[in-house]
Amino acid sequence: MTAQTSRRVAQEWDAADPLAGLRDRFVVDDLCYLDGNSLGRLPSATGGHLAGLVRDGWGTELVRSWPTWIEWPRRIGDRIAAHALGAREGEVIVSDSTSVNLYKLAAAALDARPGRGTILADAEEFPTDRYLLEGLAAQRGHTLRLLPSDLDEGLDQATLVESLTEDVALVVLSAVSYRCGALLDVAAVTAAARRVGALVLWDLSHAVGSVPLALTDAGVDLAVGCTYKYLNGGPGAPAFLYVRRELQESLRQPIWGWFGQRDQFRMGAGYDPAPGPERFLVGTPPVLGMAALDPALDVLADAGTDRVREKSVRLGELIIELADAWLVPHGFRLASPREPGRRGGHVSLHHPEALRISRALVDAGVVGDYRVPDRLRLGPAALYTRYVDVWDAMDRLRDIAERQAWTAVPTEPSRVT
Amino acid sequence: MTAQTSRRVAQEWDAADPLAGLRDRFVVDDLCYLDGNSLGRLPSATGGHLAGLVRDGWGTELVRSWPTWIEWPRRIGDRIAAHALGAREGEVIVSDSTSVNLYKLAAAALDARPGRGTILADAEEFPTDRYLLEGLAAQRGHTLRLLPSDLDEGLDQATLVESLTEDVALVVLSAVSYRCGALLDVAAVTAAARRVGALVLWDLSHAVGSVPLALTDAGVDLAVGCTYKYLNGGPGAPAFLYVRRELQESLRQPIWGWFGQRDQFRMGAGYDPAPGPERFLVGTPPVLGMAALDPALDVLADAGTDRVREKSVRLGELIIELADAWLVPHGFRLASPREPGRRGGHVSLHHPEALRISRALVDAGVVGDYRVPDRLRLGPAALYTRYVDVWDAMDRLRDIAERQAWTAVPTEPSRVT
Repeated sequence: MTAQTSRRVAQEWDAADPLAGLRDRFVVDDLCYLDGNSLGRLPSATGGHLAGLVRDGWGTELVRSWPTWIEWPRRIGDRIAAHALGAREGEVIVSDSTSVNLYKLAAAALDARPGRGTILADAEEFPTDRYLLEGLAAQRGHTLRLLPSDLDEGLDQATLVESLTEDVALVVLSAVSYRCGALLDVAAVTAAARRVGALVLWDLSHAVGSVPLALTDAGVDLAVGCTYKYLNGGPGAPAFLYVRRELQESLRQPIWGWFGQRDQFRMGAGYDPAPGPERFLVGTPPVLGMAALDPALDVLADAGTDRVREKSVRLGELIIELADAWLVPHGFRLASPREPGRRGGHVSLHHPEALRISRALVDAGVVGDYRVPDRLRLGPAALYTRYVDVWDAMDRLRDIAERQAWTAVPTEPSRVT
Repeated sequence: MTAQTSRRVAQEWDAADPLAGLRDRFVVDDLCYLDGNSLGRLPSATGGHLAGLVRDGWGTELVRSWPTWIEWPRRIGDRIAAHALGAREGEVIVSDSTSVNLYKLAAAALDARPGRGTILADAEEFPTDRYLLEGLAAQRGHTLRLLPSDLDEGLDQATLVESLTEDVALVVLSAVSYRCGALLDVAAVTAAARRVGALVLWDLSHAVGSVPLALTDAGVDLAVGCTYKYLNGGPGAPAFLYVRRELQESLRQPIWGWFGQRDQFRMGAGYDPAPGPERFLVGTPPVLGMAALDPALDVLADAGTDRVREKSVRLGELIIELADAWLVPHGFRLASPREPGRRGGHVSLHHPEALRISRALVDAGVVGDYRVPDRLRLGPAALYTRYVDVWDAMDRLRDIAERQAWTAVPTEPSRVT
């Protein structure tokens, strides 16, 4: 048995980490926080930025701020496009929740593929995506076909490609699986779907800010995603949606709100969708939530997603190395793809007592999370997580495993999102 | 010609105003802010409350705050129900934007009235409501019938009642008209619609926090509304929706997101809507935006909507009195119902140059707003607006009118929401 990476070596990696300086741009403490895939940490600049907006923008300028605020869905969308998505200007807009955005774009896509009756998705897809598609299928008489998927390895790409028939209108997939972290080949899947005339709508929630994306180069048509995970936008931060520029004019979303209207403040008769990505907006945008995205994107822009990914892969490798050595002997099993190129920013471990173990971990100063049925999920966000944090977390997990420390922990269901 | 209320008298009214002490619970300055019907002022406690949430809830507790946050759509909904709507616990939920909520409930209502092909609305209804209904009608093969409405007086209630036929599935109406401020009789209209089996969906955006509402007593089935106007929740604050308790189980909204799911974190197969008002939720709720509602509701709760209404009527009367005396001779005309019982919290004035006049007013330290085609809208929110503010605003408006001071003001379209 080879020697495992020591704590000292982990500290040396931190000392040499080109992103190490960015940790200071977050509010950090002694907590080993490995749940950046659920709620990203607070950037240090966010509190002051929000306070200024509240005091000056709302408190003093009041409605006179609206000519500025009204540009934010597009302006901040462009920033996400540039710094995290590899998309062009005018293709991304900040709006609503990921779920509402997925509904809007899925409905628009189905309308754009009349005569096709099938929607494809992963049977292990994140619940909101499955439920939304189930609803759309029921409302429109489509068939939602859920492709069987491995809980540890994710959807088999070959199976997916084989399932692409001429009847498929829409494929909805997560670039990174929420449970096992499997990473799909966005460009290859998009191209395969295009060959049969189907549209792919990518859910980038667990990928954006962690995995470099190149939506333009990959020929992606549609995507949605969340900003409170690796984008560090704060709890319940507004989501984004992406529609390829060349496709926008041909798509209509079903929720015809006034922020999607051309020349909105004429307040005229008849809905006429705006020419740009604004046509995918609905109601008044959430100004406080949008504001928190700016300081968060500043940090990501300084890091660059390539460097984020490089560190993220190493953090994942460290989890897997130590899990193999320390946890597998105690009944754990890796529940994520082992190959780094097939894995996003988090690593899942299987254990029958995963729920109680995740709670014992919290008591030991390590926050990861639990996902049904029996997965412990560890998401070390590269912008602020040190190698030594991962090492300490795994060390404490080893201690919990050795002592079976979860036996005293209650088992009521998790309510952590 | 009788003498007008003098500035000294306005000051005396302020001195005797039982709500006068609440002005200190807002961030105020010398601005005559008569646009609380567009964006309510900042409560003094909000900045600190948000800073604490950011620092402690997000920055320190991180995901461990979710068991608290996840209750907020319901908890804060119950507060809005109690303090502003006259509704019961478990009938109101904070969620999404007003537009998205209107879409959800309108779609649910149409599903609940199969075989009926007509949607009724006011031809002068707020644009987002009209557009959303136009979209739903187009998507479902319904007819959207827009009832002619007077720009100054609002929808004639008798005309509306005559239009209620057995083919009407849904009526969407604003309790207070956004343009002229006309106030409908919520109970009478609801009862008339019920007699023909139609559902009424009330848009309370311009009423809530200004006009006392008694949704339970009025037998209201469905309502949506905005929290950034008279509820002072901040720019783009999350909206609310109300569904009468007895109706909830029979309604399904079209956007099947995971926050509407029963036992959400089981993440199981198949959408099964939650038993309570949570079934009308969709995605992860906007925590920052929701948080700002608590300090704002504290102030409203201390005031009570009856006292708010009493003062609001007097503020409106003062505007009308001074407009009659000072502005009508200069080509203005009252563009709101004159009778207080038929008017909500704002007063509109007609003038062909309303847009440029509204801008000249801003330069004179008075913020009202402009609405197409030629309306100046003055919304003196009772919680923080003094009688003397209204007096000063009208005095400056008189000065602008006498000097025709708007002639130098540019005319590009307004972008103020």
